[in-house]
Amino acid sequence: MEAYKVLEVKQSVFATNDKDANELRAKLKEQGVFLLNLMSSPGSGKTTTLKRTIEALKDEFRIGIMEADIDSEVDAKTMADAGVKAIQLHTGGMCHLDAEMTRQGLEGLGLEDVDFAVLENVGNLVCPAEFDTGSSKNVMILSVPEGHDKPLKYPLMFSICDVVLINKMDVLEYFDFDLDKCREYVHMRNPKAKVIPICARTGEGMDEWFNWLRTEITEWKKG
Amino acid sequence: MEAYKVLEVKQSVFATNDKDANELRAKLKEQGVFLLNLMSSPGSGKTTTLKRTIEALKDEFRIGIMEADIDSEVDAKTMADAGVKAIQLHTGGMCHLDAEMTRQGLEGLGLEDVDFAVLENVGNLVCPAEFDTGSSKNVMILSVPEGHDKPLKYPLMFSICDVVLINKMDVLEYFDFDLDKCREYVHMRNPKAKVIPICARTGEGMDEWFNWLRTEITEWKKG
Repeated sequence: MEAYKVLEVKQSVFATNDKDANELRAKLKEQGVFLLNLMSSPGSGKTTTLKRTIEALKDEFRIGIMEADIDSEVDAKTMADAGVKAIQLHTGGMCHLDAEMTRQGLEGLGLEDVDFAVLENVGNLVCPAEFDTGSSKNVMILSVPEGHDKPLKYPLMFSICDVVLINKMDVLEYFDFDLDKCREYVHMRNPKAKVIPICARTGEGMDEWFNWLRTEITEWKKG
Repeated sequence: MEAYKVLEVKQSVFATNDKDANELRAKLKEQGVFLLNLMSSPGSGKTTTLKRTIEALKDEFRIGIMEADIDSEVDAKTMADAGVKAIQLHTGGMCHLDAEMTRQGLEGLGLEDVDFAVLENVGNLVCPAEFDTGSSKNVMILSVPEGHDKPLKYPLMFSICDVVLINKMDVLEYFDFDLDKCREYVHMRNPKAKVIPICARTGEGMDEWFNWLRTEITEWKKG
């Protein structure tokens, strides 16, 4: 198990967030650090998906994880147990992370031995979509039990994501979830979004996700 | 099918929200209107639970439903189809409703023939917990697929709710969800919260929920 820290991050002034985000992204590009912003509802499987991703990619990349949460340190413990560098970010009740909070988090994590950083954002389909964190790519998880109509109800989140992982495919038969309709609704919000059905628990579909990540991280580092 | 309207609600100044909420609550008390604030993550089953609740109680109470959503009118349509007065509230991207937005919603709904009003809040476990809407009671739904650890991660939401409905009990065996642990975590946040396991789809446990509502509405109206 690796050690992990807990950091209280403070929000910057909203108006400057886009500028801050672009500056952070440019700096990360320079340093060769790919930053993934991972978002979803509470309980969609962000932590399990991340754990599997670490297991698959930790021999190829030097991974660092930032776990954002209102309170608690459950997730940073899980990540540290998985054998990677992790930091818990406490948002002090804030429902999202902005670029300045992310910058503080990366500084706390330390980037000298990291080339693939992940921000596990606060479980929320609304506010995190409104704040550019400075990430290289945005990915969200929608789980089968949540229903295929979510792109209709949370338009902004789906419109800003490069990949939508549809998780918990192993329980598809127990829910009224229409995968084709879900794809259609996602593409209505964002025609370029890549939709990958997965099950983080059983491993189904995960190779496609790992391959996408491999390609993106490698491209990013090439510059 | 009843007709429904769409209303764009505007946020009030945050600082005055507690005062606004108390004023609204007092006014509703005077008018004999019980206001339920229903909250949950996206996809926990708020709309299905509400539909069942309407079916069970619509001969006993005059029901009016406010459906809050960032965008879309899916839910107000469902409610109007269920045969009650409904209004869709568009929050203009806001992640929660405050007391002033709720007041505007109730005004738009019209209370002259309503004694049981429901606000279906934005699907979000963070921000709605921070804003008193002026409701008589707060209820949240946690669904089995989300996991029993959610009270650890979203402390404020669980601490302000009078009832926690644990929904989708029919799929319990397919998920790693510990009901006893969940109760323990809920009560850690709020010893007085009533926990009711239900399945809105099959009707399991719903009578206990209806009875709680009946009692509370009746008490409220007695003053």
